[in-house]
Amino acid sequence: MKSKSILQAKTLIEVQFYDVDAMRVVWHGNYVKYLEKARCELLQMFDYNYLDMEASGYIWPVVDMRIKYVQSAKLAKTIEVTASLVEYESRLKIEYVIRDVETDAVLTKAYTVQVAIDMQTEEMQYQSPQVVLDKLAAYI
Amino acid sequence: MKSKSILQAKTLIEVQFYDVDAMRVVWHGNYVKYLEKARCELLQMFDYNYLDMEASGYIWPVVDMRIKYVQSAKLAKTIEVTASLVEYESRLKIEYVIRDVETDAVLTKAYTVQVAIDMQTEEMQYQSPQVVLDKLAAYI
Amino acid sequence: MKSKSILQAKTLIEVQFYDVDAMRVVWHGNYVKYLEKARCELLQMFDYNYLDMEASGYIWPVVDMRIKYVQSAKLAKTIEVTASLVEYESRLKIEYVIRDVETDAVLTKAYTVQVAIDMQTEEMQYQSPQVVLDKLAAYI
Amino acid sequence: MKSKSILQAKTLIEVQFYDVDAMRVVWHGNYVKYLEKARCELLQMFDYNYLDMEASGYIWPVVDMRIKYVQSAKLAKTIEVTASLVEYESRLKIEYVIRDVETDAVLTKAYTVQVAIDMQTEEMQYQSPQVVLDKLAAYI
Repeated sequence: MKSKSILQAKTLIEVQFYDVDAMRVVWHGNYVKYLEKARCELLQMFDYNYLDMEASGYIWPVVDMRIKYVQSAKLAKTIEVTASLVEYESRLKIEYVIRDVETDAVLTKAYTVQVAIDMQTEEMQYQSPQVVLDKLAAYI
Repeated sequence: MKSKSILQAKTLIEVQFYDVDAMRVVWHGNYVKYLEKARCELLQMFDYNYLDMEASGYIWPVVDMRIKYVQSAKLAKTIEVTASLVEYESRLKIEYVIRDVETDAVLTKAYTVQVAIDMQTEEMQYQSPQVVLDKLAAYI
Repeated sequence: MKSKSILQAKTLIEVQFYDVDAMRVVWHGNYVKYLEKARCELLQMFDYNYLDMEASGYIWPVVDMRIKYVQSAKLAKTIEVTASLVEYESRLKIEYVIRDVETDAVLTKAYTVQVAIDMQTEEMQYQSPQVVLDKLAAYI
Repeated sequence: MKSKSILQAKTLIEVQFYDVDAMRVVWHGNYVKYLEKARCELLQMFDYNYLDMEASGYIWPVVDMRIKYVQSAKLAKTIEVTASLVEYESRLKIEYVIRDVETDAVLTKAYTVQVAIDMQTEEMQYQSPQVVLDKLAAYI
């Protein structure tokens, strides 16, 4: 899971009580929220957040997600989620690394893949719409 | 929190790992899901579920909710949520009791209040729309 | 729901996609997380967070919670949650107000009540343990 | 993601309002709960649920998870989650298929990998502990 990053966003999250499980570490499903928070900040960097997507006539569902859990994030610790855009031509592929801020240890690695769906035709796009290329032009 | 019940639904839920917290009991915020599940079964009984509501031209947001936590629901236990419709004239007030199925102990008592909002005008209704009275006619 | 505040914490939250429902506003149950985040910051102010509580020999479950929903919090908006400690002698009662940062409109009002349970005897305490009074001494 | 299944469990879930997002389909992170519910039923089949695991001296964190989203699960639809145990020698690998009950269409495919950690030594086990082999003896 190591590709060339086109654009990168970092977000800090303090692990809340409501996200930890009976083992006092973050329940594995709750990392999906942390990924989404970092992804939204990344998309915001090139002005293509959720509302921008809709305004452009496309929705971008996640079609593939993989998460590798290396170490556990513990209650009250602060974690840093780094989201890196690594593909944009035919789909948006974003890679993530979650680190414990205090120790710098890698806790989680992940990626997500999103594809564009035309809201009018409901058809999946095999190339990223021009709007994305335009918005990313400054970075690619 | 004891009123005359017009209509009642019961639903069984097995407490899942993802709903318990560091104390190995259901995190207090997760009961809101249990209430909603029982409420939906109650609304379904008079054919007024979420999609029916929209089709009737109204949405029904929860405007008030209170939950009293008497005892904790534990991992892997089965609980029964009873939802009772106690008011319908000007708003929908539903009362809930959650019991441990094995011991019959009361774990939680709650109520929710929903009001109708006209989807066209976005105005709150101070009387329940006729559609609700019609759907409830057999029970009132 | 208006009492004299002994101590107050404010926290900012940006409404995430994963917290909104089919109406594109925060699902009513997700506000419980926002309350908890603000409450934890308040408890942290007098050094009595979740881990401090356990170290002091007590857990403090929420036994009563009420939430009044005035207006909806919308996707991508920033909200401010104010948590105010209003009772501490026999229980911790905390009141909350959630505002839209942009418009200053009140979205939600709430309170929670927590009581101390001695971890050894598992008995509920009808007076707050001395440790709480000591930690709050500077403020009361 | 197609391996020989040693043991299989199926569970039905009705999609609840609190699990759907602004697009009125299940938010992609909520499928992790559906997988867990089916996995717990599978583990229960050979008497190795969460509490049995702890009693045996091991915890089994998820270390790898992949989810492919084929189609969306919609509000109020009933879905069937099939969990199949496909590896047990050195780790527990479970594969999942989620189908819409009405149309039989495949909505989601996934897998999870869990490894044993000795609760005393906190060491990861590279072979599944004997207790698992014993409990699975009737099936392998």
